[in-house]
Amino acid sequence: MSVEEVKNARSAVEFSREKLESILRGRFFYAPAFDLYGGVSGLYDYGPPGCSFQANVVDVWRKHFILEEDMLEVDCTMLTPYEVLKTSGHVDKFSDWMCRDLKTGEIFRADHLVEEVLEARLKGDQEARGLVADANADAEGDADKKKRKKKVKQIKAVKLEDSVVKEYETVLAKIDGYSGPELGELMELYNIGNPVTGDKLEPPMAFNLMFETAIGPSGQLKGYLRPETAQGQFLNFNKLLEFNNGKTPFASASIGKSFRNEISPRAGLLRVREFLMAEIEHFVDPLDKSHPKFGEVKDIKLSFLPRDVQQAGSTEPLVKTIGEAVSSGMVDNETLGYFIARIYMFLIKIGVDDSKLRFRQHMANEMAHYAADCWDAELKTSYGWIECVGCADRSAFDLTVHSNKTKEKMVVRQKLDTPVEVTKFEIDLTKKLFGPKFRKDAPKVEAYLTNLSQEELEAKANELKSNGKIIFKVDGIEGEIELDDKFVNIEKRTKVEHVREYVPNVIEPSFGIGRIIYSVFEHSFWNRPEDTARGVLSFPPLVAPTKVLLVPLSNHKDLAPITAKVSKILRKEQIAFRVDDSGVSIGKRYARNDELGTPFGVTIDFDSVKDDSVTLRERDSTKQVRGSIEDIIKAIRDITYNGVSWEEGTKNLTPFVSQSETD
Amino acid sequence: MSVEEVKNARSAVEFSREKLESILRGRFFYAPAFDLYGGVSGLYDYGPPGCSFQANVVDVWRKHFILEEDMLEVDCTMLTPYEVLKTSGHVDKFSDWMCRDLKTGEIFRADHLVEEVLEARLKGDQEARGLVADANADAEGDADKKKRKKKVKQIKAVKLEDSVVKEYETVLAKIDGYSGPELGELMELYNIGNPVTGDKLEPPMAFNLMFETAIGPSGQLKGYLRPETAQGQFLNFNKLLEFNNGKTPFASASIGKSFRNEISPRAGLLRVREFLMAEIEHFVDPLDKSHPKFGEVKDIKLSFLPRDVQQAGSTEPLVKTIGEAVSSGMVDNETLGYFIARIYMFLIKIGVDDSKLRFRQHMANEMAHYAADCWDAELKTSYGWIECVGCADRSAFDLTVHSNKTKEKMVVRQKLDTPVEVTKFEIDLTKKLFGPKFRKDAPKVEAYLTNLSQEELEAKANELKSNGKIIFKVDGIEGEIELDDKFVNIEKRTKVEHVREYVPNVIEPSFGIGRIIYSVFEHSFWNRPEDTARGVLSFPPLVAPTKVLLVPLSNHKDLAPITAKVSKILRKEQIAFRVDDSGVSIGKRYARNDELGTPFGVTIDFDSVKDDSVTLRERDSTKQVRGSIEDIIKAIRDITYNGVSWEEGTKNLTPFVSQSETD
Repeated sequence: MSVEEVKNARSAVEFSREKLESILRGRFFYAPAFDLYGGVSGLYDYGPPGCSFQANVVDVWRKHFILEEDMLEVDCTMLTPYEVLKTSGHVDKFSDWMCRDLKTGEIFRADHLVEEVLEARLKGDQEARGLVADANADAEGDADKKKRKKKVKQIKAVKLEDSVVKEYETVLAKIDGYSGPELGELMELYNIGNPVTGDKLEPPMAFNLMFETAIGPSGQLKGYLRPETAQGQFLNFNKLLEFNNGKTPFASASIGKSFRNEISPRAGLLRVREFLMAEIEHFVDPLDKSHPKFGEVKDIKLSFLPRDVQQAGSTEPLVKTIGEAVSSGMVDNETLGYFIARIYMFLIKIGVDDSKLRFRQHMANEMAHYAADCWDAELKTSYGWIECVGCADRSAFDLTVHSNKTKEKMVVRQKLDTPVEVTKFEIDLTKKLFGPKFRKDAPKVEAYLTNLSQEELEAKANELKSNGKIIFKVDGIEGEIELDDKFVNIEKRTKVEHVREYVPNVIEPSFGIGRIIYSVFEHSFWNRPEDTARGVLSFPPLVAPTKVLLVPLSNHKDLAPITAKVSKILRKEQIAFRVDDSGVSIGKRYARNDELGTPFGVTIDFDSVKDDSVTLRERDSTKQVRGSIEDIIKAIRDITYNGVSWEEGTKNLTPFVSQSETD
Repeated sequence: MSVEEVKNARSAVEFSREKLESILRGRFFYAPAFDLYGGVSGLYDYGPPGCSFQANVVDVWRKHFILEEDMLEVDCTMLTPYEVLKTSGHVDKFSDWMCRDLKTGEIFRADHLVEEVLEARLKGDQEARGLVADANADAEGDADKKKRKKKVKQIKAVKLEDSVVKEYETVLAKIDGYSGPELGELMELYNIGNPVTGDKLEPPMAFNLMFETAIGPSGQLKGYLRPETAQGQFLNFNKLLEFNNGKTPFASASIGKSFRNEISPRAGLLRVREFLMAEIEHFVDPLDKSHPKFGEVKDIKLSFLPRDVQQAGSTEPLVKTIGEAVSSGMVDNETLGYFIARIYMFLIKIGVDDSKLRFRQHMANEMAHYAADCWDAELKTSYGWIECVGCADRSAFDLTVHSNKTKEKMVVRQKLDTPVEVTKFEIDLTKKLFGPKFRKDAPKVEAYLTNLSQEELEAKANELKSNGKIIFKVDGIEGEIELDDKFVNIEKRTKVEHVREYVPNVIEPSFGIGRIIYSVFEHSFWNRPEDTARGVLSFPPLVAPTKVLLVPLSNHKDLAPITAKVSKILRKEQIAFRVDDSGVSIGKRYARNDELGTPFGVTIDFDSVKDDSVTLRERDSTKQVRGSIEDIIKAIRDITYNGVSWEEGTKNLTPFVSQSETD
């Protein structure tokens, strides 16, 4: 098959998630964890091909980002004390809304419940209007239905008012944006209860998604499993800056597991309780977010779904270069734009289908209040568009909160070429009076005063001037505090500064590796049109779990030395391979291999014994060529690691007329 | 310096742990996690050089074991439900003994407390006898003392009876082997209480070392963070066997974090609460533990500390080949021996000092009751000999307990070339009678009977014959159960079997990566005799965090294009490098670099601008050679990745007379 023919073949048979999952589980790409013990939802193990695929993706990630950009990789602990995650906001805000059924003890995730019930009612309406034959027979296979543990077991054909249909559709379009109380109101309004019994549920309660544990034997030190790798990077900022000789911009990076105690996990590998993340924190001057290498990526064309398009109710992406996107102000700055382009390049390299990739800008209500801009790389799968990479400008939020909490400065000191005059309010404390007056509270009062912002100082200066005293409250000290000008002096002063101090902003590309991997599985999967039972996973050779299947034509003892010889060379070259000497037909072995996504087959036959030649088969086109062992391995290496095409890599090899693939 | 001179120089200055740790922390190899928040003992973060060193060690491990032996790598979840770890024995047995001081609230680890107090008394005795000047001034630096949080703050010079000294020494030699109650008796006998207040402590209580958490929103599903990666591999045995086309022997492997809630962590990176493990489970026929590749390793000489030598009170290792060790029966079998040799090769490859490595056999009381044999690779550090790799023959224990618990068979089916006649007892149940008699308990009773061993069946057969009935008890059912021969029939039958079914045994090499890394840090560290303030970390190039330091002689703009050119080539070749254009003297930059363990320095000077030549410096010998950029990079690649020596790799390059190293 030619390149064009392969392309056509890949889209000839309709995608079936059921077929894909049957292969992924059958070939042990992954499996539900602890299924011997009945399984635990949201936990999956990767078997050998899945694990190897994951390792290859991580390896490409490390080279594409860390090595290419000289990032500083760190490996921080997953166990995290309460105090850190309290400061970061996770203790208070990292939660979903859940509703309990007090009769049955069932627990529902509120937004998912509203979504499923309204979707089911809309489908029932469609059936009642005669627009679908049977609303229960939707596109998902039985296996999927069972796995997703649908709350709505049976859809009833009930016609709705036109206005109600419209209302439901509006709610569904905004389902990700509702607060808990709002979800509670919707459930009240639309009479949404337990979908099986119809009973009313308790109003939505916030459920924190972090796994809690106790550190040490006393049980006193409360900790969590980290919900992201980012906090460890922020906490090490000062050490990283020093390691980088005090220079910015620079980036740290971390690859590791994070945890999320989902209320009711669904959608297979896409929503799990333990997952691999790869995160970058790029620290940059807030006054200069240009990027020196932006020119190298500016002409890359991407699909954007910016905020205004979404507000207009459209999902039609704008296709433009990242250069245009930044210069028009749609993407906030060059550094953010640079990473968006690099994310794109990475995803394409590991096998994401370009036509199923878009960058969606966060709506104002989705974005954390401190974020300057945020774009998600979304990948289209049979579950819809899935957020797989976030790319946010988090401003100076994280460093600031940790610095405020710990009273440890986290700043960059930039030596100024030309010193500048700076005018600002300063406060002087007559410290010897504080001790006698406040005793043990003195440090708290002093800290409060020295941490006042310029605006606050200005107000206090005026207060002191007008009233001869200032009045304020300090957290943890009862009552108001009054101080006169014997205690404090606030003045506007002009000074010459030689060093500029600033808290850097953070651009954070954050990758959910498991979601990306599952999406690549879907994007790579197809069935051969000539035999639709035959599935193929067309992974790029670079990330394929195994690069070569070594196939001796038979178990004849004469072939064994050649198999051993090729094995030895492949092992020395560190090209991952497997030998299949199972004795079933070549066609069956190739078919098995296509399911594992192995790009190359090397066949050893009786001619190999005579002249050391072997046959090389390409997975997608099933094309075969013949050559010496050395030349064949060189072709494999060039195509796998050096970006050479099959045509180019095999041009000096002899085309080989293959046996039937389906024998 | 010649190779011999380097060797001498490396041992000229006495090792100082304090100096090493100051470099490791100063250069951010690692740091206490969350130190901005006061730190959490037993948790450490790896900074860029530590993280990179760890990644390189893991990469070598993966190639040395997984790729070389075609092992099946899996990635299983850390969150593990209660039931699994109850079955494996961890819920009941994975604990240390702790003692509380009810007055102060302090918690002590019982064995460590007894050890420290007796050691302190022995030191005090030494001082009282005039054998040491000041027992408080021991070999450890102040920083170490502080960090280890010694319980015994001040040693008193008190002379002991000779017989007491002997008793203490005997106790210390066996300190790892005492049970909790025994430790309690020792504390009673020797009057060991809180070392500061002298108050009595509560008797030792078992403290389970697993971190506990709850999975899901109901809080009902109790889980733990895994204490080892092994269980995930055992639970996936059937899938792995199928993936391997039903063939044994084969091995699975897993690299990932495990957790241990230490009572009071000490000894820095050697005893931590979250750590990276790499574990192999090699599944093998219990009747044939030979290994096809044993011949390749049999002549490797190792230091062994077998059980009988230890029992004789000696620590003098036997040096012999692994071939002799296995043939003499000292090491139980070839497969265990093969892995011991491969462990040795791996450790040497990543920089372990051969003279500080021994294999110590577990004493009978250290070993789990099911284990057939167990050897630890121990590395000598300033903390003593540290267990870094365990290599155990765990027999069929793990698969058997999970299989018994879940009633899922976990066996290998081997087709027999010649069918065999097998005579064994079989039990027939008249199932239709069980339901009416036992109702809901019927499955339990049936399972009990069908799971009886051959010995038990023989006994029951005799009982049935003699008494016409059998009497037994079943877990979870009250009272005795009586069944006559209408319910059961037990007979000895002879059958021809075509398939042999067996539970494979498991050989388990288990690596504590963090401990190995810290030991390599110690083994690699030395101070230059000519300037003892200069520390060097002589990592093998293969695992060094960064391979090349790129040093432009000055910040002159003419040098920038050459720096960019060399950078581009190194990046393309994926050789990790850093540019140091900080402008301090070359000598200072090299010194900084020696502390980071970077094996090569490439210096760019004004001659480079003229003829594209650069200088290559070797870290340990400080030797320098000159050549073209291409030749220098080729030398770096050959020495780093292809096992070529410095002499061989640079023989065609021109020796270069260096500037002073200490300018």
